[in-house]
Amino acid sequence: MNLHREPIPVAEAVKRVLSLEAENYIEKVKIENSYDRILAEDIVATHSIPPFNKSPYDGFAINSESTNDASKTSPVHLHVIEEIGAGHRASRAIAPGEAVRIMTGAEIPEGADCVAMFEICQTYEAEDKSYMTIKRPMEKRQNIIEQGSETKKGTLLVEKGTEINPGVKALLATFGYSNVQVYRKPVVGVFATGTELLDVDQALEPGKIRNSNAYMVTAQIERSGAEPLYLGKLADEFDRCYEAVSEALNKVDMLITTGGVSVGDYDLMPDVYEKLGAEVLFNKIAMRPGSVTTVAQVNGQLMFGLSGNPSACYVGFELYVYPYIQKSLNKTEPYHSIIEGILGTDIMKPNPFTRFIRGSVAYEKGKVTVHPAGIDKSAVVTSLAHTNAFIILKGGTRGYQKGDEVQVLLLSPNEGSQFFQIDA
Amino acid sequence: MNLHREPIPVAEAVKRVLSLEAENYIEKVKIENSYDRILAEDIVATHSIPPFNKSPYDGFAINSESTNDASKTSPVHLHVIEEIGAGHRASRAIAPGEAVRIMTGAEIPEGADCVAMFEICQTYEAEDKSYMTIKRPMEKRQNIIEQGSETKKGTLLVEKGTEINPGVKALLATFGYSNVQVYRKPVVGVFATGTELLDVDQALEPGKIRNSNAYMVTAQIERSGAEPLYLGKLADEFDRCYEAVSEALNKVDMLITTGGVSVGDYDLMPDVYEKLGAEVLFNKIAMRPGSVTTVAQVNGQLMFGLSGNPSACYVGFELYVYPYIQKSLNKTEPYHSIIEGILGTDIMKPNPFTRFIRGSVAYEKGKVTVHPAGIDKSAVVTSLAHTNAFIILKGGTRGYQKGDEVQVLLLSPNEGSQFFQIDA
Repeated sequence: MNLHREPIPVAEAVKRVLSLEAENYIEKVKIENSYDRILAEDIVATHSIPPFNKSPYDGFAINSESTNDASKTSPVHLHVIEEIGAGHRASRAIAPGEAVRIMTGAEIPEGADCVAMFEICQTYEAEDKSYMTIKRPMEKRQNIIEQGSETKKGTLLVEKGTEINPGVKALLATFGYSNVQVYRKPVVGVFATGTELLDVDQALEPGKIRNSNAYMVTAQIERSGAEPLYLGKLADEFDRCYEAVSEALNKVDMLITTGGVSVGDYDLMPDVYEKLGAEVLFNKIAMRPGSVTTVAQVNGQLMFGLSGNPSACYVGFELYVYPYIQKSLNKTEPYHSIIEGILGTDIMKPNPFTRFIRGSVAYEKGKVTVHPAGIDKSAVVTSLAHTNAFIILKGGTRGYQKGDEVQVLLLSPNEGSQFFQIDA
Repeated sequence: MNLHREPIPVAEAVKRVLSLEAENYIEKVKIENSYDRILAEDIVATHSIPPFNKSPYDGFAINSESTNDASKTSPVHLHVIEEIGAGHRASRAIAPGEAVRIMTGAEIPEGADCVAMFEICQTYEAEDKSYMTIKRPMEKRQNIIEQGSETKKGTLLVEKGTEINPGVKALLATFGYSNVQVYRKPVVGVFATGTELLDVDQALEPGKIRNSNAYMVTAQIERSGAEPLYLGKLADEFDRCYEAVSEALNKVDMLITTGGVSVGDYDLMPDVYEKLGAEVLFNKIAMRPGSVTTVAQVNGQLMFGLSGNPSACYVGFELYVYPYIQKSLNKTEPYHSIIEGILGTDIMKPNPFTRFIRGSVAYEKGKVTVHPAGIDKSAVVTSLAHTNAFIILKGGTRGYQKGDEVQVLLLSPNEGSQFFQIDA
């Protein structure tokens, strides 16, 4: 094993991970279960919108020619032959001298070419028949929403790789997609390493702490749109550890381990990768926290060795695992968005390496402001609970002052980016 | 039935809905299933962090007094009695003249009060025993992370009403919350009205369109953290409609209907509310779209009558149903955040009433910019698919120009507000 590790820049590490192929599996779900899933087929208008000429108002559907001679002094009288509400159809075409009482959204009857709103008409009954009068000429096509005026049949509406939000789901319903093809959620296995780790339901013991990374990472996996599979703690004995990892690779699409990637006496993962014949993409990154984050691949299957330190583990997941999960979902925007923001607090510590500081975004007078989520020691414990962004501080810089412009990586899964571009 | 409707301002309508009580039901879930749920109990540190004095480095745990006389010319020699990794404990206290080889995170043995990093020590073997030497005096407590220095036992870490994100879930694990109390998701029933509506799996018929509002609204309910129950289409005959609504009220926490709230011939909901003896909180709001949005309550149970127009339905949900769902979940921040943003496009139409325009937010050079999601007619069909915010245009204004400052309501469910404050 080569103990010398050459750190590579963050952008290069992200590029190496994302340059690997990711399998995209497709499954069909009912529209009822489609919310939040990623489209694996383009959504196309299966009919025009509106599908027929329709009325935008309550009024009378008439033929404009009937009104050519209408005036204040000589209104035109038309026989109202029937009434149609939305969803109903006129029983026959209207003839000259006839009108149909029509409700908003209903189909314009044959023979009619405009709609006169109730407000400009009068009505009366005579000899058991209904009549309407109008005092002004109407124009052909006046007050008619024409078939196909909003969307023509065959138009591409939403591309595959898009998340199904409420608006997309409305389109699925409109165009009859009672079943829809989506990408299957990749299964992401999680092992925790560390003999100091207790399970969450175990009582605290001297010298030990409870395993929190695995629970945190499974939630990050869910937030990323994948399916977590917690595989328990990894044995601290090499052969059993190697076996557990080999077996797990058959059950998952990708595998995360937390801890065990440093060069310490208890760090077994580098040897496991070696025995598996895995190609290590990198095992040292010029970043803090998380410099030991290691990614390896064997037969195209990825193993993410995240740090055992909670903050480093969290950052490593969002930088390297998150976009690869999005690639497995064939998302059009696989990366977290990186935007510019204003630092809300001084961070005077110099940065020999690029730093990713847990932060939270606020909006002040139209500007994006970002504050570190926990700057004092006691806030470290709860800082991840308040984190919705990373403040990116470039390596080789002294300190940053309140008001300085910084890059901000947004963790919200609802807004993504096609690119990963950092000034670091 | 009183056909005269007096429009009330949006803020007043929101206030009327939110001033009603909401039942909060609590259930217990396993930590594995807790992601995304809302805490119904405060999370308290059940032990100190760290729970014991621990080492921040790999090195030797020693007693600083042993090093009082150490110098370059006269290093101190200490007998290394054992080695402890994280999760292990020294088998006994160290005596004067002794040291323990210690790994990062391991507990400081009794008798030791500082840690000398490997880098400043030398080691050698003699007579089958291990020794280390150090050439400088160490200080008491040097390189020791003291018990409780990050969090004291009993500290309130996260308040109830907070969403369980990955960071909060890590805290649950750290402090042994293998089960956690969360608020039960309220069940929100949905009826669609309108005889023109076909089900999603029905072929298109002349004069009819498919029901898309119900599918859209059920996704909005999911996005809000509640549980949708689609109850089908509401009969267009009064007695059957009344019965269906009465029965549904026994099955759900709150009820949404789409359509049927105008004053047209086919709008049955106002009569249903009346026969139920419901109190109508309002049935006209000074806003576009969605002015006919109606909210009524009977025995403390809310019925939301949303418009049948898709955009109006969408807006009505987010303004009135969303915050009431959050109240049912006892969320600390029940409202969508409203921030300031810069308009990215001219919107020259005058606004007699406050308008909520479907928009999408972008970040440009640290500023929040917002563009309408669909300004031309053909984009109406897909605009909801691209909406992640509403642009709020104040009533009584002429037009707005590109670059104007506007209020923006963010639809992302991850960022909420304690307040609902609009300049309109």
